[in-house]
Amino acid sequence: MRLGIDIGGTKTDAVLVDDAGVVSHRLTRPTPKGPDAVLDAVARVAEDLCAEAGLTPATVASIGLGVPGSVLDGVVSHAQNLGIDRLDMAGALRERWGVTPVVDNDVNAAAVGAWIASGSSERSIALLNLGTGLAAGIILDGRLWRGSRGTAGEIGMLSMDLNGPEGPDGLRGGLETCASGSGISWQAGGEPAASVMARAATDADAAAIQDRMFHAVATAVRVLVLTLDVEEVLIGGGLTRMGPQLIEGARRVMREWERGSRFMSSVDLTARTTMMDPEVPIAAIGAAMRGAGRG
Amino acid sequence: MRLGIDIGGTKTDAVLVDDAGVVSHRLTRPTPKGPDAVLDAVARVAEDLCAEAGLTPATVASIGLGVPGSVLDGVVSHAQNLGIDRLDMAGALRERWGVTPVVDNDVNAAAVGAWIASGSSERSIALLNLGTGLAAGIILDGRLWRGSRGTAGEIGMLSMDLNGPEGPDGLRGGLETCASGSGISWQAGGEPAASVMARAATDADAAAIQDRMFHAVATAVRVLVLTLDVEEVLIGGGLTRMGPQLIEGARRVMREWERGSRFMSSVDLTARTTMMDPEVPIAAIGAAMRGAGRG
Repeated sequence: MRLGIDIGGTKTDAVLVDDAGVVSHRLTRPTPKGPDAVLDAVARVAEDLCAEAGLTPATVASIGLGVPGSVLDGVVSHAQNLGIDRLDMAGALRERWGVTPVVDNDVNAAAVGAWIASGSSERSIALLNLGTGLAAGIILDGRLWRGSRGTAGEIGMLSMDLNGPEGPDGLRGGLETCASGSGISWQAGGEPAASVMARAATDADAAAIQDRMFHAVATAVRVLVLTLDVEEVLIGGGLTRMGPQLIEGARRVMREWERGSRFMSSVDLTARTTMMDPEVPIAAIGAAMRGAGRG
Repeated sequence: MRLGIDIGGTKTDAVLVDDAGVVSHRLTRPTPKGPDAVLDAVARVAEDLCAEAGLTPATVASIGLGVPGSVLDGVVSHAQNLGIDRLDMAGALRERWGVTPVVDNDVNAAAVGAWIASGSSERSIALLNLGTGLAAGIILDGRLWRGSRGTAGEIGMLSMDLNGPEGPDGLRGGLETCASGSGISWQAGGEPAASVMARAATDADAAAIQDRMFHAVATAVRVLVLTLDVEEVLIGGGLTRMGPQLIEGARRVMREWERGSRFMSSVDLTARTTMMDPEVPIAAIGAAMRGAGRG
């Protein structure tokens, strides 16, 4: 059995999977703030989940973690959502368990999980993660592409509209401002994204925010496919809990482009975009598979 | 000696290089239109160049060609600028010479040439080609990345401004419309791009077209760096004959972004963008090195 843990800003999701990434056990708990509290919570959710299967972290085949921050050699930095500035997570857990986990960025872990869940093999995909932020994890010929500085896929800071809403960083029409939980909430003066989306059917301001979100999701897919020519873009992250209307809204924009352009019609974004099931814990599965050396 | 030939829409550029890509002989001639005329012209420029070095195409160490079109297994298709719909170029030249050349897309060849000219090694770069069209060639960890369908780097069809000028394909503010020879000429009612740029110092319409070009070049670099995290973007293609004002104009836009955003400042596009010397025949050199199995 392989242990995978996705440490999110609000909850920590731990799974035990077999070598094919099929989940047998799962345990989810709230994530506290600050390095010591996070470490302790992660260690305990791991130990409790393993106990359910008659195992310990020291006796599972491998351990992988996904963290919302920069990760280099097991050291996490700039994980603002966790209240962590810098933490040697791999080192601290090795001290506690006597085995060394693989620690990776959560979007990269989710990309591996989505790739496994959608058939893996040597193919090339991108996971477009619509969570608190917006970023992509990239798998080329079956291997994670991290970039020369580990920042590949940071497309949230691309602008889709020079006259769009200004984001926290001063960028107008940024993809992250238009299509992430934090960006939607920012546009609505702090209201949670889910609540803004719930109002969109009856409120013009919320409908405009939702339209921009559909346009931004379609634009992010277009950037990923035209730049990388991945076979498929898989959409994951918290915003997928909106359900099918998210992918349908983005596909409406893509179909408009396809009607207007022979080139875009040949690229066929509509057929190359798939939404992941929000109930499948792709980031935790991917973390487990990263621990197993996949991706 | 290795033979490399870049077949452009207006001229064909042939070089003999050593194993490091250093040019010893070069011959440039106009490119005719249509498959038979192009084939014959390419064969003759190759034979004449080889003769200058006391060689023949059959006795050089390898042969590579770059062609502005789609290439699969030596077969060229959709090379509109050459008047070629479909041509088995590798097969036809093999029949004539008894040896098989490597045929590749010209932007991919130029990317390999730029990568060789800038120090090669295992690093990751993108060549942003500002020619008749706009597209990028991508080298990741020292290998050409072509994508799942061979269309990676087709970023000319991304929009930078939903209110920008409409291109031939109906797309508003497309990067190719704003920053390619054909796009600039299209915006100016058919006037050649070089002539539009020459007017920019004294004419407001031409200045607006030039400003859009600078913005589009900076945006293309931003897309390549944020998506792929290549170390460096090298700018090549016919528009580089404008000289240093091209890269300086793009850098002004990048510096504005860097002043306005901590994130963009950390990405440091300004330092990661370099313009290739327009006198160095990177596409022909790259074609020769592709023939030698590099990239």
